[in-house]
Amino acid sequence: MQIAMIQDRILPFDQLDPAYLDRGAFFGDGVYEVVRSYNGKIFALDEHLQRFANSLAAIEITALDIADVRARVENAFARAGIPNAKIYFHATRGSAPRDHVYGPDLQPNFFLTVTELSDDPAEKAAGIAVSTYPDLRWKRCDIKSLNLLPNVLARADAARKGCAEAIFVSDAGLITEGAASAFFAILGRKLHTAPLTANILPSITRTFVIRAAAQTGLEVLEESLTIREAAWADELFIAVTTHDIVPVTKFDDKAIGDGRPGKYTKSLIDQFRSFT
Amino acid sequence: MQIAMIQDRILPFDQLDPAYLDRGAFFGDGVYEVVRSYNGKIFALDEHLQRFANSLAAIEITALDIADVRARVENAFARAGIPNAKIYFHATRGSAPRDHVYGPDLQPNFFLTVTELSDDPAEKAAGIAVSTYPDLRWKRCDIKSLNLLPNVLARADAARKGCAEAIFVSDAGLITEGAASAFFAILGRKLHTAPLTANILPSITRTFVIRAAAQTGLEVLEESLTIREAAWADELFIAVTTHDIVPVTKFDDKAIGDGRPGKYTKSLIDQFRSFT
Repeated sequence: MQIAMIQDRILPFDQLDPAYLDRGAFFGDGVYEVVRSYNGKIFALDEHLQRFANSLAAIEITALDIADVRARVENAFARAGIPNAKIYFHATRGSAPRDHVYGPDLQPNFFLTVTELSDDPAEKAAGIAVSTYPDLRWKRCDIKSLNLLPNVLARADAARKGCAEAIFVSDAGLITEGAASAFFAILGRKLHTAPLTANILPSITRTFVIRAAAQTGLEVLEESLTIREAAWADELFIAVTTHDIVPVTKFDDKAIGDGRPGKYTKSLIDQFRSFT
Repeated sequence: MQIAMIQDRILPFDQLDPAYLDRGAFFGDGVYEVVRSYNGKIFALDEHLQRFANSLAAIEITALDIADVRARVENAFARAGIPNAKIYFHATRGSAPRDHVYGPDLQPNFFLTVTELSDDPAEKAAGIAVSTYPDLRWKRCDIKSLNLLPNVLARADAARKGCAEAIFVSDAGLITEGAASAFFAILGRKLHTAPLTANILPSITRTFVIRAAAQTGLEVLEESLTIREAAWADELFIAVTTHDIVPVTKFDDKAIGDGRPGKYTKSLIDQFRSFT
């Protein structure tokens, strides 16, 4: 007999729910997306589905049709009836007894949640505090995978410091991105953000921020900054699907600008609103 | 209403099995161990439990008592009645709606399987082929975490090349370890293996190999080798809990030595057997 144990409960191996044999649970062998809706309409769904397809392709999960994923997302969103919703979904390579090597016949697992999204106007009005943390992540952060332990550790560190987000800093001393966001700095009329490489998630919100910047008279420089350069910035903000643009007014305990959200950040927030 | 979806099935969020809200599934926010038994006795359980405790501490999962883990392992092993067993177990931070930040009250999830271990005498007699792969992993491989996607990708690449294991090579061109094993090279009477750093899992089997080496007249050098140096070696092998020492006779398509397991490797295998 082969057996399994969940907490203290022993059961025959073949009675396990497939969720316990998910390669997502054993290896983080899967990829995910988060989309949101504004007033009953999902924002940038095409872009998120394209990135999801790219992530799946990068780890060679081939047996999932993106048209089916779209149908599932739209169906679940419609059924939930939540106008301002956060939709999380992931796909894993499938369920099987644990083995790094996978067979050709695995059927991917798909999981999705729709939850009410509570916008936080106070956060946008006052800005948030962030803290830096070593970028311990793997070398393919362009893949939106379920291997997120370094992000969890970074956010736990930030939370202990009273900060709402952790900003990753590479061994070379350069800021890459937030643990769950893209990171931007405004110096003069220049908007700085890290260039897209294998170490950076190609953030969808980042694309819209760059579009908004063009309409706000900011020049965009895709260059990484050091911690010191970021601390010198006139304005800082993060960008993330669930909250779009959030001003950063404290960076490793240093007040940014006059300690309140800056004028360009406010313009970008207004501009972004016009996209949604 | 907040809803969830599993494959195409929509259900209320609060009816989800906790396995679907496991932080292991969302983030790989957990750690694991693999132990084996020889003829009814678990090998090196103390060492594995100590490493498990270290891994838990490193990611600050504090609400799990190692004495309880030991009792669960021993209980499940006894119930399974499999003399030569592979025991896999992992613990995650717990189940909760997805959020990087975790609360103080999470109860860790524990999961374990006991399966029959099939030793492969042919593998030991003939040796295996291995192939190299870029070490894409995060910077804390000393933690035995569930973030194993780079290992999966490396093993998939090896399998495509007809190889039984992938050997990681760092950006600096140095061999770190196997995707699921420690890596050793014998040049003359010297046994080379990578030093234990944050990039290397402190392999339990490695400890026993080093002990066996002393009794085999080999000098141990904890130094990393390049791909070329490894290809020059007289003998290569990997070490892994489930198979102890496995000779490597082909390395990136190059035959090692005379293409058969070497004499020191055979001595080490014999020596290792005396420990079990």
